[in-house]
Amino acid sequence: MAAPAQLWIAGYGPGLGAALAARFAREHWRVLALSRSAPEPALANGAHVALDLLAADGAARLAQLIVEHGAPRVLVYDVGVFRRAAFAALREDDFRACWEGMALGAFRVAQAVLPAMTQAGGGTLIFSGATASLRGGAEFAAFASAKFALRGLAQALARAYQPRGVHVAHTILDGVLADSARAGQYAARLDPAAVADAYWHLTQQTPGAWTHELDLRGADEPF
Amino acid sequence: MAAPAQLWIAGYGPGLGAALAARFAREHWRVLALSRSAPEPALANGAHVALDLLAADGAARLAQLIVEHGAPRVLVYDVGVFRRAAFAALREDDFRACWEGMALGAFRVAQAVLPAMTQAGGGTLIFSGATASLRGGAEFAAFASAKFALRGLAQALARAYQPRGVHVAHTILDGVLADSARAGQYAARLDPAAVADAYWHLTQQTPGAWTHELDLRGADEPF
Amino acid sequence: MAAPAQLWIAGYGPGLGAALAARFAREHWRVLALSRSAPEPALANGAHVALDLLAADGAARLAQLIVEHGAPRVLVYDVGVFRRAAFAALREDDFRACWEGMALGAFRVAQAVLPAMTQAGGGTLIFSGATASLRGGAEFAAFASAKFALRGLAQALARAYQPRGVHVAHTILDGVLADSARAGQYAARLDPAAVADAYWHLTQQTPGAWTHELDLRGADEPF
Amino acid sequence: MAAPAQLWIAGYGPGLGAALAARFAREHWRVLALSRSAPEPALANGAHVALDLLAADGAARLAQLIVEHGAPRVLVYDVGVFRRAAFAALREDDFRACWEGMALGAFRVAQAVLPAMTQAGGGTLIFSGATASLRGGAEFAAFASAKFALRGLAQALARAYQPRGVHVAHTILDGVLADSARAGQYAARLDPAAVADAYWHLTQQTPGAWTHELDLRGADEPF
Repeated sequence: MAAPAQLWIAGYGPGLGAALAARFAREHWRVLALSRSAPEPALANGAHVALDLLAADGAARLAQLIVEHGAPRVLVYDVGVFRRAAFAALREDDFRACWEGMALGAFRVAQAVLPAMTQAGGGTLIFSGATASLRGGAEFAAFASAKFALRGLAQALARAYQPRGVHVAHTILDGVLADSARAGQYAARLDPAAVADAYWHLTQQTPGAWTHELDLRGADEPF
Repeated sequence: MAAPAQLWIAGYGPGLGAALAARFAREHWRVLALSRSAPEPALANGAHVALDLLAADGAARLAQLIVEHGAPRVLVYDVGVFRRAAFAALREDDFRACWEGMALGAFRVAQAVLPAMTQAGGGTLIFSGATASLRGGAEFAAFASAKFALRGLAQALARAYQPRGVHVAHTILDGVLADSARAGQYAARLDPAAVADAYWHLTQQTPGAWTHELDLRGADEPF
Repeated sequence: MAAPAQLWIAGYGPGLGAALAARFAREHWRVLALSRSAPEPALANGAHVALDLLAADGAARLAQLIVEHGAPRVLVYDVGVFRRAAFAALREDDFRACWEGMALGAFRVAQAVLPAMTQAGGGTLIFSGATASLRGGAEFAAFASAKFALRGLAQALARAYQPRGVHVAHTILDGVLADSARAGQYAARLDPAAVADAYWHLTQQTPGAWTHELDLRGADEPF
Repeated sequence: MAAPAQLWIAGYGPGLGAALAARFAREHWRVLALSRSAPEPALANGAHVALDLLAADGAARLAQLIVEHGAPRVLVYDVGVFRRAAFAALREDDFRACWEGMALGAFRVAQAVLPAMTQAGGGTLIFSGATASLRGGAEFAAFASAKFALRGLAQALARAYQPRGVHVAHTILDGVLADSARAGQYAARLDPAAVADAYWHLTQQTPGAWTHELDLRGADEPF
């Protein structure tokens, strides 16, 4: 009997991460939830792995995970490092932390996973972008610059790997997720379960019509 | 017993139109296929309606269809008027025909359908765009200008109607559909059934995460 | 002695049109100001020509002007047809008027002028766009759709004619001009003389670095 | 007698850097050319400063330069770190080097210069982008991701500082500069002197019409 398909979530958290785990579990996928610390409760249909992608051994540990578990069919990169500040008050550490978390981590994951996916005959890589992937707001120099960087990376990967069978998508999450840490500060109109559903359908697209980029926003989100 | 949900396809043809009719029929929707002449064979799960949207009575006939059939749950605007020529050889009639077919027709359909959808409590409007919606190529002055016009219209409608419950989406079909009239001239990598599936999933999105724009291209389409 | 270089302004008006006439007059250019009715006062360094581009003889009269005056070195297309309304209240006449004035008129002008410019060894065509060239706002279905159409046309012309020596530019005037008819309704932060200066410098670019698109906005314009 | 206005060029090199120095020298500006090593020959109207922006004391040395020379009226950030490789062959060091050179360096320069410019009553900051600022090509994961990052930063700075009197511009240099190190490998159609002229005119724009982004390409550059 074939092993169940695997979804890996890099940057797992209680909002979109948990919704993705639930959505794919419904389809009997196995889920590997990667985050810096393994949270409670345990996943129904998978496992938490505590992994700091930016640590010196981050790439090696990713490679090890692939040896142990095989290549994921789908990897979602949903690491969010949010910083907002007037530019004069923004510290270089913040500027660097956003890029390392959202772009360098994505680079490491892509380098580990893409050869394995190609060898396994295909797969899907989804990168979570944001409003700030398209627009650098006045107090978003760090966050937007890093989200722009991620988008450029995602485009390059799509152009390089789609002809070789790996679907690479980039989403514009235009708004704040209802379950996110920022939901108190901002009007939160994006429903994690609805976003997870959109990600599921992206992974079910066939090579005859792949989406590279789509936006997702709540019905009453101004844009 | 409730009447089945209706899909209307404006600009029905044997490529994407037929694939949409088949996809929604699978979900037991009723399909109304609008085109200038009603083609053979008959639809399994719906009806052809011969309707020239640009005729003097186009708007009145649309209104009459809504009276007869009720508001569609989903309307796909997939009218294609393709002209390609060096600019010096492009006739004003071609420039006008592209705009009338792809933008003015969309305006008429939106004006007829949106009030009915709003009154019915919601719905989905999908406009088919193309590579030329984002890029005006040297020989595409007529086609691209009209596709740009359609995109501007679609954005305005999304901003106006999404807060009132109507989902408005615009697709970038980046490439030539395998069943289209142009499939002989160009490398045709877009699979109509796969595109129809993406449209189906757009219509199933919930207000917690609506997509306004997504691209769709074959896995080996250069972009 | 060589004839002075000519600037033609299609859609001449008291705001940007007058500022352009003044700016180019400073460089001793001759200005031909085209508008539906020839306004007072007369131009210091040129002439008004009453010309309805959309009339049945619009194209013929343009051709005749080229015979009489020779090809313009620079043509600025600055026709504005502004309509703003909730979509349900927007009339088809408005939707059509925006497109005819801003896109079809541009098509006619381009068809008349480009062969003459190419034959004369070069020239510059500048199309005035707006915020609405990139974003379709809720009440801007007519205006935005037409401005999008103009942008698609401008791109096609740039790709077709720049390799043949005609520079084609499209500006994003992001905001309201201080002298425009809308200056009372909106915060008007764009200075016509400053915009005219930017247009002048576009026309002075050499083929080693041509700008196709640039935005222009007042320093305190939110964007 | 007033001190001459100063142009600082971060990432000075023999191509665009030298052309900018020459162009502004023509206007009697004083030029400070910053690069990791001070090249020969000396500048006619300014000075070379050997400065490694990414060194531990990079920010401190910038601050010191401002104390010594006063705030520049204009700063051009033209640091280029080019890497091109198939993604599987791209090393993390390359990915990081592009971002550090093109985005982190820009961050440091902006943090040093913007308070000084604001205090001095205004100024202009120009960031050099590239084709890869808008499009991540298959072999450009490192270069494009970093150029995207720079663009996001530039937008944030424009929105934050333009209302306070500092003009922030981002250019899309679409093509290879004739004098660049890559001119042998690629068709080089961008003329450094023509680009420098466009930068000069950007700095001469008045607050009534500032350009945030413009593209620059050779007349025969395909796009």
